[in-house]
Parts: sequence; structure tokens; C-alpha cells
Amino acid sequence: MTEALINHISRYISLPEHDAGAISGYFTPLSFRKKENLMAAGQVCRNHYFVVKGCLRLFFIDEKGSEQTIQFALENWWLADYTSFSNQKTSAFYIQAVENSAVLAIDVHKQEQLLAQFPALERYFRIIHQRAHAAAQYRQQYTHDMTREEMYLHFAQSYPDFVQRVPQYLLASFLGFTPEYLSEIRSRNRT
Amino acid sequence: MTEALINHISRYISLPEHDAGAISGYFTPLSFRKKENLMAAGQVCRNHYFVVKGCLRLFFIDEKGSEQTIQFALENWWLADYTSFSNQKTSAFYIQAVENSAVLAIDVHKQEQLLAQFPALERYFRIIHQRAHAAAQYRQQYTHDMTREEMYLHFAQSYPDFVQRVPQYLLASFLGFTPEYLSEIRSRNRT
Repeated sequence: MTEALINHISRYISLPEHDAGAISGYFTPLSFRKKENLMAAGQVCRNHYFVVKGCLRLFFIDEKGSEQTIQFALENWWLADYTSFSNQKTSAFYIQAVENSAVLAIDVHKQEQLLAQFPALERYFRIIHQRAHAAAQYRQQYTHDMTREEMYLHFAQSYPDFVQRVPQYLLASFLGFTPEYLSEIRSRNRT
Repeated sequence: MTEALINHISRYISLPEHDAGAISGYFTPLSFRKKENLMAAGQVCRNHYFVVKGCLRLFFIDEKGSEQTIQFALENWWLADYTSFSNQKTSAFYIQAVENSAVLAIDVHKQEQLLAQFPALERYFRIIHQRAHAAAQYRQQYTHDMTREEMYLHFAQSYPDFVQRVPQYLLASFLGFTPEYLSEIRSRNRT
């Protein structure tokens, strides 16, 4: 199961073959059923998750009691509440499986040990976080500049598999509109 | 001028003293006058900037012609359009000096050389980007959950120096309201 992770790391840094086993040993393989919580608000985000199969999401429950999704993670994506994970303080977020999912988990102490033993992985995680930081900069522009319909079309074009896989009510919540409005947009743009 | 950078790096990783000079050599010190552009939309983001003195901002011009600020960088903060910087593709953003500013600049090729010569700096930049990623997760929650007044108060409490220094019209644009509304909030909350 760690093969997916080793392959992903190898896309960004060159990894001597004999390191793969030792790196894999730091991770715990876990399985979650669809809609199962990996973490709930009020808990500390104990683990950093790498998705081997399935899909996770990070969300919070707003003042009206609605779930607001702010990040998804498909295969080969990482997910954590990074504030809570780094400081081991309480999180305001939930992490939940969108589909039945197989993940690799590593806690913050083991991650520090891993990085101490294999400092080359700092580069791998630097690239992962730099990309997420870059995406957050442009997301702010899209949110401001695009109509909701444009947001959906941009998203559907950039991540076609994702739009097919994720349940419509979650996609709608992520893009900030109602499921009814999403289904209107979809039928308008179907050719 | 590179002393500030070396001090900042030393907060996160242990840096042998004899490396400081070689690291400094990779950076070009530059000065910008208030309101001077370091980069304009349509250009490639050639440099990654470290603020030694002053303040920079990253903004775009929306469809109505208004400037929308999405990030500020005070002393010891880094700034770039990371999508444009990494891929050397055209940026949709401007980077501008908010005050007269002294910065250290490094281009993407030099940064790669720097990281190859001093791989320990991967950890430093991993932490910088992880924090920015973490902040972006919570910013999404605040934007959704807080009223504009709560946003301002949260911001004023978290970054008091910043709120004092940045011109009011820029702070208003960053928080998504008019300068008039900001001045209303400020007078309501003055004790």
C-alpha cells in the first residue's frame, strides 16, 4: 500500500531504492468507510494523511449548522489541519471520508523522525506545500472575480475526474452554492 | 542587509556560521519606493522576495478595475506569485511596495542552486510554505463564518502592528469592504 506513496515521492526527488522500505515503515495504513470521520472539530489533528485510494475532505460546521467543505484530497494528495497538526492544538475542522478510502497516516513526532532520518523528504514536502500555497493565492482571485457558474466551469475543466466522482451536494457546498443551483448550471452547460 | 534573512533562517534551522556568507551571496538587495511595482500582471514573477524593511502586497485588478489585495508581506515575510515563479509563466498579479521597502530578491534558478548547495534550507522553506498553507485553510473559515466587523477585530488583535501601519484603504480592500465602512468599525470599537 505504501507503493503509491513511494511512487509519488519519486516524482519529486530521487529516492534510493533501499530507502523505500524504511520510509514506508513510518506510516500506518488505515481504512475508512464512506462518511466516517478521521477527525472531528474539538480534537487535535493527530495525523497527516496521504490518500492511496478514495477521497477525503476537510470541512467545518458553520453557525447555521451547515457543513462547509474547504479542501478535498483524492489519490496522491495530502491532507491535515496543518495549524492543529504542527502545534498539536485543537482543530476547528473535521476530516471525513467522501468514499471508502485507504490512507497512510503519520503523526507529527514520527514525521519529524522521518524528516530527520531522510532530510531529502523536506524538499518533497516543501514542493507539496508550495503548490498548496500557490493554489490558495489563485483561489482567492477566482472566488472574487468569477461568477459561480464560471467557477464551476473552471473547476470542471481543471479537475474533470474530480467533478465526476464527488457527490453533487459536496461539490455545491465547496463552490458555495446550493445543489439545485449546481444542477441548473450542469444542465445549462451539457452539450 | 542579509543579516535579517540569516537571523530569520536561524530561527528554524541551525545554520553553521560559515554558511551565512555563501547563502547571502545568492541574493540581490533591492530598494523600492512606496507604490512602485516589483511586478505587473502579464509579466513572469522572476523573483522570490524577502522583506528586510517595509511592506509589499500582492494584488490583482478585478473586472471593475478595482485593486484587490490578497497578501501582504512585512519584515521577515516572503512574497511571490508562486505559480508564476515555479513555472516561469505569466502572472495575473501585481507586487507593489506599500512603503519604501528594502528587499532581498532571488530568481528561480538561483534558488534551485541555493537549495542544491544548502539542502538544509529545504526545511526552512517547507516550514514557510506549510504555515502559509495552514493560514489559507483558516482564512477560508473566517471569510465564511465571521461578519466583516469580526474579521477586522480578529485581524486587529492578531496583527496589531500591521493594522497600524497599512494604509486604511488597502486594509479595507484586503478585508473586502469600503474605506468608509472600515472607518465606521474603527470608531465603533475605539475605547
